[in-house]
Amino acid sequence: MAGESGKRTEISQLGEFGLIDRIQQQFQLKNPTSVVGIGDDAAVIDTGTHFMLVTTDMLLEGVHFDLSYIPLGHLGYKAVAVNVSDIAAMNGLPRQITVNIGLSNRFSVEAVDALYEGIRFACENYKVDLVGGDTTSSASGLVISVTALGEVEKPRLVKRGGAQINDIVCVTGDLGGAYMGLQVLEREKAAFMENPVMQPQLKSYEYIVGRQLKPDARMDIIHELKELSLVPTSMIDVSDGLASELLHLATHSGVGFNIYEENIPLDQLTYHTAVEFKLNPVTCALNGGEDYELLFTISQQDFEKVKNHPDIHFIGYVQNKEKGIRLITKQQQSIPLKAQGWTHFNR
Amino acid sequence: MAGESGKRTEISQLGEFGLIDRIQQQFQLKNPTSVVGIGDDAAVIDTGTHFMLVTTDMLLEGVHFDLSYIPLGHLGYKAVAVNVSDIAAMNGLPRQITVNIGLSNRFSVEAVDALYEGIRFACENYKVDLVGGDTTSSASGLVISVTALGEVEKPRLVKRGGAQINDIVCVTGDLGGAYMGLQVLEREKAAFMENPVMQPQLKSYEYIVGRQLKPDARMDIIHELKELSLVPTSMIDVSDGLASELLHLATHSGVGFNIYEENIPLDQLTYHTAVEFKLNPVTCALNGGEDYELLFTISQQDFEKVKNHPDIHFIGYVQNKEKGIRLITKQQQSIPLKAQGWTHFNR
Repeated sequence: MAGESGKRTEISQLGEFGLIDRIQQQFQLKNPTSVVGIGDDAAVIDTGTHFMLVTTDMLLEGVHFDLSYIPLGHLGYKAVAVNVSDIAAMNGLPRQITVNIGLSNRFSVEAVDALYEGIRFACENYKVDLVGGDTTSSASGLVISVTALGEVEKPRLVKRGGAQINDIVCVTGDLGGAYMGLQVLEREKAAFMENPVMQPQLKSYEYIVGRQLKPDARMDIIHELKELSLVPTSMIDVSDGLASELLHLATHSGVGFNIYEENIPLDQLTYHTAVEFKLNPVTCALNGGEDYELLFTISQQDFEKVKNHPDIHFIGYVQNKEKGIRLITKQQQSIPLKAQGWTHFNR
Repeated sequence: MAGESGKRTEISQLGEFGLIDRIQQQFQLKNPTSVVGIGDDAAVIDTGTHFMLVTTDMLLEGVHFDLSYIPLGHLGYKAVAVNVSDIAAMNGLPRQITVNIGLSNRFSVEAVDALYEGIRFACENYKVDLVGGDTTSSASGLVISVTALGEVEKPRLVKRGGAQINDIVCVTGDLGGAYMGLQVLEREKAAFMENPVMQPQLKSYEYIVGRQLKPDARMDIIHELKELSLVPTSMIDVSDGLASELLHLATHSGVGFNIYEENIPLDQLTYHTAVEFKLNPVTCALNGGEDYELLFTISQQDFEKVKNHPDIHFIGYVQNKEKGIRLITKQQQSIPLKAQGWTHFNR
């Protein structure tokens, strides 16, 4: 192929994060308005009075979604929500999005309408404007690339790199549900492929299937943090699994964590479905992706402000980097936590 | 497919512009900072002191490029340049880009390096920072989605919709070259596929092949316009062919044009190659895409400032909407100009 030299290194040898690191090293920020570049949930641009946030995400058919179980409207909504979640992770408010779509000729105008209906619903829900984009034909399948722009008051910007020793580690909602929802969808699809008379049995899995198909960005939490005058010391959204996100916060902040297994929030249905699938529920919470909850650290003195919040869970605290990221099990064992991550290149 | 109703309308029945219009009608701008949405070269966001510009473009293998003749480095450069060109078309300066790439496993780390070398070269040339992006695997081929952010002083913003009757129509550089370069590349590829011993004969077509493989955004013109204190009344970049772009300016401005065939700038090699391919050179300039020159209108009183510019050509003037867009041929015939456009959905 043009542009290649003799040597060939597979991308899977580096992995997604390795590849991003490699790219990042080749680029330096030169414009004075570029405050944060590659490596956080969103880039940060100084517009004078505010910071503008920019994040982008691309979803490809056959890699990120399977149209045999996600309706196009849900997909459109999700494509926006995952980007809004990255704006939330910087403590910002989303304002505008652009959407590029590539469509093969198996998609009709009615299909495009269904996709944009979901996008419009997300725009209304998150109060963002669709301001641009590109529609093009695709040689194979559907491609959606969304860029979201957001805004944050300068003193309220939260990055991955601000966690301090003794800070409290918080996570919203519950974890592992989106991953278990995906397992159910894949099982029902397999059963259907084998016997098309079979109707998918999804009713009793509604909550976790919804977590997979209709994730929401936690903008409610961002608004509440503002009302409480609370600025987390570090934050990230949980898109690749708790373990992977803890690793990112640890690396950026130069710290370690003690995480208490018994405090990791699990929904009952997630728990029972994991058991049904002979999976460890905590492992699903640690390494299952796409929950789009918020993981953040707050200083001890801010604990009072949120201690009674029904949907913020306190799962551990920040410790010295040398102590690493450790999980304290229900049996009081301390074990090192490794991020399996959830990289598409390794699948 | 999920989300589709019974009725099926093919996207080719609407065309790319029809599809964009349909989408645009479903979305209204609600945020006070959203100044211009879908429908111009870039969206415009009010940041207080300035306008921020946002544009995005997606390139798909097999639709927008063929890796058998475009080296990955050139492709990376071009993916940035086409977005910078949209920022230029709003009279802005590019500042940041984000790049999403989807890669199938036939791409090695070395191939990714080659692609990003071109992206880096473009960043240096246009003085933009790569601030974010997403790398993911792709089920088939290479996908590149770039978003560019730019900045313009509020009084210097130029939209498609400001052309006034009697304004002078200007175009930079020369037209049709990128299209003829593509014809040459496709002919040489076909010859090579038939007989792989054949070496491509590109030497004598260097300029037009370069126009196809290494287009540049005309930032030089944007800087010169500023030095001349000249703000065009309307502007667009020539990505789909002169006729198509004239139609956009006419629609947005509510005007017509008289365009003089003899004034349309053609490079000698473009002319001779078109003749060799038994094509009308002027038709290539009118309907061939990807020149990335700037088409703009200026008021008569600004003519003095640019009349001796070696690379700005005066091809006609703005007239009443009712008179339409007309081409005055070398034989002094006035014929209506139709935009064939260059839509991927129709190819």
